Amino acid sequence: MRIDVLTLFPEMFPGVLGASILGKAQERGLVTINVVNFRQYAGNKHGTVDDTPYGGGAGMVLKPEPIFRAVEAILEEVPETKPRIILLCPQGRTFRQEIAEELAQEEHLIFLCGHYEGFDERVRQHLATDELSIGDYVLTGGELPAMVIIDAVVRLLPGVLGNEESARTDSFATGLLEHPHYTRPADFRGWKVPEVLLSGHHANIARWRKKEALRRTMERRPDLLERLEWDDELRELYEEILRGE
Amino acid sequence: MRIDVLTLFPEMFPGVLGASILGKAQERGLVTINVVNFRQYAGNKHGTVDDTPYGGGAGMVLKPEPIFRAVEAILEEVPETKPRIILLCPQGRTFRQEIAEELAQEEHLIFLCGHYEGFDERVRQHLATDELSIGDYVLTGGELPAMVIIDAVVRLLPGVLGNEESARTDSFATGLLEHPHYTRPADFRGWKVPEVLLSGHHANIARWRKKEALRRTMERRPDLLERLEWDDELRELYEEILRGE
Repeated sequence: MRIDVLTLFPEMFPGVLGASILGKAQERGLVTINVVNFRQYAGNKHGTVDDTPYGGGAGMVLKPEPIFRAVEAILEEVPETKPRIILLCPQGRTFRQEIAEELAQEEHLIFLCGHYEGFDERVRQHLATDELSIGDYVLTGGELPAMVIIDAVVRLLPGVLGNEESARTDSFATGLLEHPHYTRPADFRGWKVPEVLLSGHHANIARWRKKEALRRTMERRPDLLERLEWDDELRELYEEILRGE
Repeated sequence: MRIDVLTLFPEMFPGVLGASILGKAQERGLVTINVVNFRQYAGNKHGTVDDTPYGGGAGMVLKPEPIFRAVEAILEEVPETKPRIILLCPQGRTFRQEIAEELAQEEHLIFLCGHYEGFDERVRQHLATDELSIGDYVLTGGELPAMVIIDAVVRLLPGVLGNEESARTDSFATGLLEHPHYTRPADFRGWKVPEVLLSGHHANIARWRKKEALRRTMERRPDLLERLEWDDELRELYEEILRGE
């Protein structure tokens, strides 16, 4: 997969993109991530990429030309790909795991990051193929959202995660929140690990974990239960929890 | 405000924390952000901070001691504060703008970032005051979520944003998605700026912007309409949009 990120703040990226799984995925050649400062496509010697809004008002608006030119330079470099061109903005579709899975099928993603300012509407209408938001909160720019989406997508690419790490993804995919985890010491400052986990009884442990995952989901995210695929054991555990067991 | 971040990947932070508004807020002394590698509190010469889960299974679990000790070292350093201790995890409450506003009132925040592994449940039960998730997607660790929350919170602190930037926040606070923005050129590759914005007629411009903000919210985020405070003009615009105008 190839990923290009257009931003006015390229210095925000190397620390995040170089660390951990994203760094390893690039070292292994599973993904190429290219960060471009689109100020270089300003087309004027002052490097101006924004201007005041038509119709008046506070704030500046990112001009269309530099962004179109920066994307077109990428398309000329790799003319064989049909990239998804993703605008990060609060008005976009809310990013979810299903969208990460969909984007992980693509061969080329281009992220357009604004900062403070909004984009000229023509970028939205005639250049972007997607508009995404990572949640209902206001951020300074699209840079952190781009990093979040890149992290969520790259970890799904074949060969990126080892078996151990991918197991956790699978557990998320059950549709329940994760059950509680415990490790040594068995007694930490008087707070003890539940006895069942020390019992060595695998069936009881599996049942306890499923029940606690269900309990946590019922308490914290009842909305997830609507999409859950119920089996007999889950229904039984549900009844137990309702009875206070 | 003081912010401490506990992580095993401190190198991910400087690029993001040093840029733009977060960097300026620190320079001006409006916020102090302190990134701590909690491996230094491992208490063993190998720096081991995780162990296998009780009850078996794949993956490693972050041990309680290093995290408790790292937080306690911070509390000893600033004994006068009562920090919110925030665990980043997919099981947490979903972060929203209201939570950013709430956290912006605090004097001290501590973020606990896991990476690959889960936390020992006793960290959750006996140390964290809050558990937050930034959205329904799987990430490699809590580092990016911590950065997202820090960005959303710090920009709300008094004195951090200039007037121009804060105007945009206000526009989000209307409960509608933002209206389209346009800047020069008026004709870009044949795509023209709507005439009303070039008219200089302020009342018409204000009405057009309100209508397009409402239209965009109706199309993309009808869920936001439920919380909207309707006035007569909004009701009129709503009817017009329904009639296809």
